[in-house]
Amino acid sequence: MIITLTTDFGLRDPFVGVMKGRILARAPTAHVVDLSHDILAHWPAEAGFWLARCHQYFPTGTVHVAVVDPGVGTARAIAMVEAAGQVFLAPDNGLLAPLIASEPRARCWHLDPAKFSQLGIGRTSATFHGRDIFAPLAAELASERVTVAQVGLPVSELVPGWVDEATVSAEQAIGVVITIDHFGNLISNINGAAIERWVEPHVYVGALVLPLRRTYGDAKPGTALALVNSFGVLEVAVAEGRASDLLGLSRGAPIVVRDSVRKR
Amino acid sequence: MIITLTTDFGLRDPFVGVMKGRILARAPTAHVVDLSHDILAHWPAEAGFWLARCHQYFPTGTVHVAVVDPGVGTARAIAMVEAAGQVFLAPDNGLLAPLIASEPRARCWHLDPAKFSQLGIGRTSATFHGRDIFAPLAAELASERVTVAQVGLPVSELVPGWVDEATVSAEQAIGVVITIDHFGNLISNINGAAIERWVEPHVYVGALVLPLRRTYGDAKPGTALALVNSFGVLEVAVAEGRASDLLGLSRGAPIVVRDSVRKR
Amino acid sequence: MIITLTTDFGLRDPFVGVMKGRILARAPTAHVVDLSHDILAHWPAEAGFWLARCHQYFPTGTVHVAVVDPGVGTARAIAMVEAAGQVFLAPDNGLLAPLIASEPRARCWHLDPAKFSQLGIGRTSATFHGRDIFAPLAAELASERVTVAQVGLPVSELVPGWVDEATVSAEQAIGVVITIDHFGNLISNINGAAIERWVEPHVYVGALVLPLRRTYGDAKPGTALALVNSFGVLEVAVAEGRASDLLGLSRGAPIVVRDSVRKR
Repeated sequence: MIITLTTDFGLRDPFVGVMKGRILARAPTAHVVDLSHDILAHWPAEAGFWLARCHQYFPTGTVHVAVVDPGVGTARAIAMVEAAGQVFLAPDNGLLAPLIASEPRARCWHLDPAKFSQLGIGRTSATFHGRDIFAPLAAELASERVTVAQVGLPVSELVPGWVDEATVSAEQAIGVVITIDHFGNLISNINGAAIERWVEPHVYVGALVLPLRRTYGDAKPGTALALVNSFGVLEVAVAEGRASDLLGLSRGAPIVVRDSVRKR
Repeated sequence: MIITLTTDFGLRDPFVGVMKGRILARAPTAHVVDLSHDILAHWPAEAGFWLARCHQYFPTGTVHVAVVDPGVGTARAIAMVEAAGQVFLAPDNGLLAPLIASEPRARCWHLDPAKFSQLGIGRTSATFHGRDIFAPLAAELASERVTVAQVGLPVSELVPGWVDEATVSAEQAIGVVITIDHFGNLISNINGAAIERWVEPHVYVGALVLPLRRTYGDAKPGTALALVNSFGVLEVAVAEGRASDLLGLSRGAPIVVRDSVRKR
Repeated sequence: MIITLTTDFGLRDPFVGVMKGRILARAPTAHVVDLSHDILAHWPAEAGFWLARCHQYFPTGTVHVAVVDPGVGTARAIAMVEAAGQVFLAPDNGLLAPLIASEPRARCWHLDPAKFSQLGIGRTSATFHGRDIFAPLAAELASERVTVAQVGLPVSELVPGWVDEATVSAEQAIGVVITIDHFGNLISNINGAAIERWVEPHVYVGALVLPLRRTYGDAKPGTALALVNSFGVLEVAVAEGRASDLLGLSRGAPIVVRDSVRKR
């Protein structure tokens, strides 16, 4: 039984630790896996992107909890999604949009506060739903003592995402930088499967035009390159360097890919 | 079986990892939960505050290990406390004072080096008791192969804390900023239960006087507010901002709450 | 069953989390312990040093995975080492040299890609072998469903290390700073066992000559000292301060120890 956590809580304070305490109190055999606790608070697109791209590496039955929740304490709902044999919990603030875009058979619910309160989980603070709702709910769902349908109200759609999904046509793909990783690589929301089949794809980012390479070692040290990374999306990197520093770009920066051969 | 860890070791080096190795070697089914490894080395009040406020989210039988230990290698004792059905281990340097202040039925021991050496745990370095004493001791206690009474000498009191507990009277509460969290919120040691019952509590911090709000969304973005946070203590925050930056205050700064109505 | 992870991936992104997902999918009862994810990308000597110094704190059967892999996607081999009843996996780029230097009975293999592909682990990306090879391989080995000999080709030696091992003679030891820890201490690769037996060892580092002390408290606050640390190697520290700041030294800086008495 696996529960993953994705938050903007950081690791300095015991916020993540007390979520794990509440999970283990109700699901003593759960494995709790940290995906990231350094999501930018005002960029939930990042959390949603990673969930959509990472869940395939976890087994069926995994429960994923994502709490990037500037609206905590307001009337925002809690979203529950079943997709790919797994369950995803997050505030209904657009965070789960990338997952739903990539999983057409996803089913969506809102947590029903009345049914939740019947689980005997106790008092809920106004400001820490991660600990008071998400953690015990994830433990109950992962333990299969309750199902999403039993605590939820089906909804036909969730709040839309903060960033448009990338658009890919026969000869052009348009997306944005979604996150900058630990190595300074600019990771886009452009699915690589389409453009890898093109004859001579070129990537337009900032002031640069880059050919598509296979791996970091295919460019000279210090020069920029584009590749389809190990999560299947277009990435702009600098061999043995930091693309974010060299290009001076950040989250939200546009990236365009064109098939140069077709354009002639 | 859960063992929590709270240290000032950081996560850059493998110090926490080897503590977990030693725990799992003796308690192979233990769940080890990190509370924080970024406690300020010279401010153990922070570790004690969080233990006092977090342990309630862990089940009975949990063993909490806190190692903020500038005196390692000197003659300082190792404190063991039983409270609320859990065990707390820390250097006897004042770290556990906030826990004992909030748990009147807490019982205290000093680890008896002679009895510890009978556990067959092996050589102890002069500078890493977290790995050589605390980790294996926690594993033995959590596994219930030994009790605190069997390895300890009862003591009537521990070394007092570094920071006075907050004082709360009928119309005034006086405390200090104990920690600044990941979001820049100033978290005090003033228990919120009392002041929430006041008619019109106002919070005096730095040059500001703030009314008490219920949640972050109750103030305009960029403005300061005070609230009783999800750990039950008074906190000063800035809506969608960082109070530590805006107010220029840090750990130890005084905070006073007065009930304005009563004062008239 | 324990698997440790040592990488340069950082904790900001979900790279370590997806490695854990793949491990737990194949070894659901494994305990995954993080040693460090902040190894400097261009200084794999640090990862190798810590593995050589930390593995003794883990039980027999532990599988250690170290991925500091600037050559990912090139033709570099994957090294597998059996030593001290444990298994070590890493790119064959010199990372494991300190381990082999300290474990004369270590046996070495290269992963055989043909045999690995028979494990049914699936497609391997060009840029994330940590997730696609190391994680599932570690799970199979830790679960004892496969042995190193079954997936490896024996080799007589691995790629040599990036940093020479320290040399120790009867009256002089010469080494370098291998890592700077969270506290700013300069940790060398000089084994302390030899020099602790000397009559009056003195440590030459930067512009300083320091006597050997037993613990941090044996020097006045703010002054530098040398000691044999809890991992058995020579360390230069500043009592209640940061040696890296005070001395202005970093990784690679030379350290020499001489027995002053013998020199007279």
